[in-house]
Amino acid sequence: MIDEAFRARLAAAAVAVEAELDARLSFDPAPGERARPRRLLEAMRYSTLGGGKRLRAFLVIETARAIGRGDAGPVRAAAAIECLHAYSLIHDDLPAMDDDDLRRGRPTAHRAFDEATAILAGDALQTLAFEILADPLTDASAETRAALCAGLARAAGLAGMVGGQMVDVEAETSATPLSTEEIVRLQAMKTGALIRFSVEAGARLAGAGEPGFAALSTYGAAIGAAFQIADDLLDAEGDTATLGKRAGKDAGRHKATLIAALGLVGARRELAAFVAKAKAAVDAAGLGDRGDVLRATAEFVATRKN
Amino acid sequence: MIDEAFRARLAAAAVAVEAELDARLSFDPAPGERARPRRLLEAMRYSTLGGGKRLRAFLVIETARAIGRGDAGPVRAAAAIECLHAYSLIHDDLPAMDDDDLRRGRPTAHRAFDEATAILAGDALQTLAFEILADPLTDASAETRAALCAGLARAAGLAGMVGGQMVDVEAETSATPLSTEEIVRLQAMKTGALIRFSVEAGARLAGAGEPGFAALSTYGAAIGAAFQIADDLLDAEGDTATLGKRAGKDAGRHKATLIAALGLVGARRELAAFVAKAKAAVDAAGLGDRGDVLRATAEFVATRKN
Repeated sequence: MIDEAFRARLAAAAVAVEAELDARLSFDPAPGERARPRRLLEAMRYSTLGGGKRLRAFLVIETARAIGRGDAGPVRAAAAIECLHAYSLIHDDLPAMDDDDLRRGRPTAHRAFDEATAILAGDALQTLAFEILADPLTDASAETRAALCAGLARAAGLAGMVGGQMVDVEAETSATPLSTEEIVRLQAMKTGALIRFSVEAGARLAGAGEPGFAALSTYGAAIGAAFQIADDLLDAEGDTATLGKRAGKDAGRHKATLIAALGLVGARRELAAFVAKAKAAVDAAGLGDRGDVLRATAEFVATRKN
Repeated sequence: MIDEAFRARLAAAAVAVEAELDARLSFDPAPGERARPRRLLEAMRYSTLGGGKRLRAFLVIETARAIGRGDAGPVRAAAAIECLHAYSLIHDDLPAMDDDDLRRGRPTAHRAFDEATAILAGDALQTLAFEILADPLTDASAETRAALCAGLARAAGLAGMVGGQMVDVEAETSATPLSTEEIVRLQAMKTGALIRFSVEAGARLAGAGEPGFAALSTYGAAIGAAFQIADDLLDAEGDTATLGKRAGKDAGRHKATLIAALGLVGARRELAAFVAKAKAAVDAAGLGDRGDVLRATAEFVATRKN
């Protein structure tokens, strides 16, 4: 149930992760550094501190908390994943990719700065994500740190986010539309993999054992799928002012979405099915009442307005 | 001394690392994958399997071997660093950056494919570098894997390669030329950090203790500085056919190089000083005769023709 308490936790996670990002992207040189390239940092800060729902960060923090770990480690991992996410948005918005001018109600990074700075800021944010995960401050166990780096790489790479983006770019110019199954798979790669990893990172940091980890991974995959369908529905039905980015762009570009394949009614049915699947996975994880925030997150993802 | 034996080892390292890259960038799906985005893989293969000196790979492998580790781990780490290096070349060549058409005697990635594919291939190669380093197959010790990920991130990020590239891009349009000290620092970030990390990765994988590790790190930094000065000298004195990339472009763009600051004679004197420093560091590392290949590498870096 999405109540005031839920919204307060969502806001608290956003505040915590912004503070962590602010510290990691300080203009003051870190120990051993001489000076930091100011314009690059400005672009990195612009792209990471500019608000957003922080759903990925929230999932890391709340998954860890549901299992019983509430310290700084999950907030740091959450910041790493937000860096990775911000890098993907900067590069997706570039003229050679989606060529978007607006993101979260503000000019995209290459419009606010320039294209070279945007490319480098995205590159540096990807690097920073791994730097944070590999840092002993994130977790005392090297096994966990190495597993987090490996997990993020799988979620972000060829078999995940970038691979999905490539399939998406290719589908736009292809003569044959993707099948429903292909669309589900593309979205699982492009946005689902990182959302799923957010849940897995929280579970790993909190020391979840099997079979809890597997159930939470299923939860993360279902949340990722629900998130993308809700995003597509918002694009089809929302307006630019509420979204903070251009609405209706999928249809204009023949983007491969479930709406194109199944229609609005069919897409809403799929969305409800993924929400139910996510809740069932929380039950299976054996968290009892401590899983309530994760259950509410499934509803939140499906009903959000931007 | 650069003799036939040295050249044979250089060639052997290149063969080993190409085989590793070829395997990691296979068109066949890995376990758990459905299909791999073919065009993206083609661009990644084009950019990593296209030859090159493989100096970074050689440094990983030969540093580990000098200490006494000759198995597959260093070859895998070498492949990871070559992925990181290839990503940086792809993005540096982009129209919004250096806008180069030629690399290693062939069209640059965005010319051979397209800009979107080149951006994504670079992104995926950076990710793959961390994926390889975090993989238990690279080293059985999670401490080592996490340290390698942290070290690569530092070398590649804000305080290293990308930070240096940003300073370089900004200097091109700045009214005041960089001082000699600023140029040395820029180059230490832009190319030096990754070369130094290559040596450190080999030392770490081979279990180098202090003070050997520190001495080898100094060696890596000196090799990195020598490499960059030699590169600038080749750009000023070489021709496009031998280089496989456009010659004389630094002067045309007012690139910040030591030649611009010190002239050809001054730059050659600096180069000789870094070669001497590198050799002294090998002595300090206490490797005795086993350090001969690393000593020869210092000469090779200074006298190479392309």
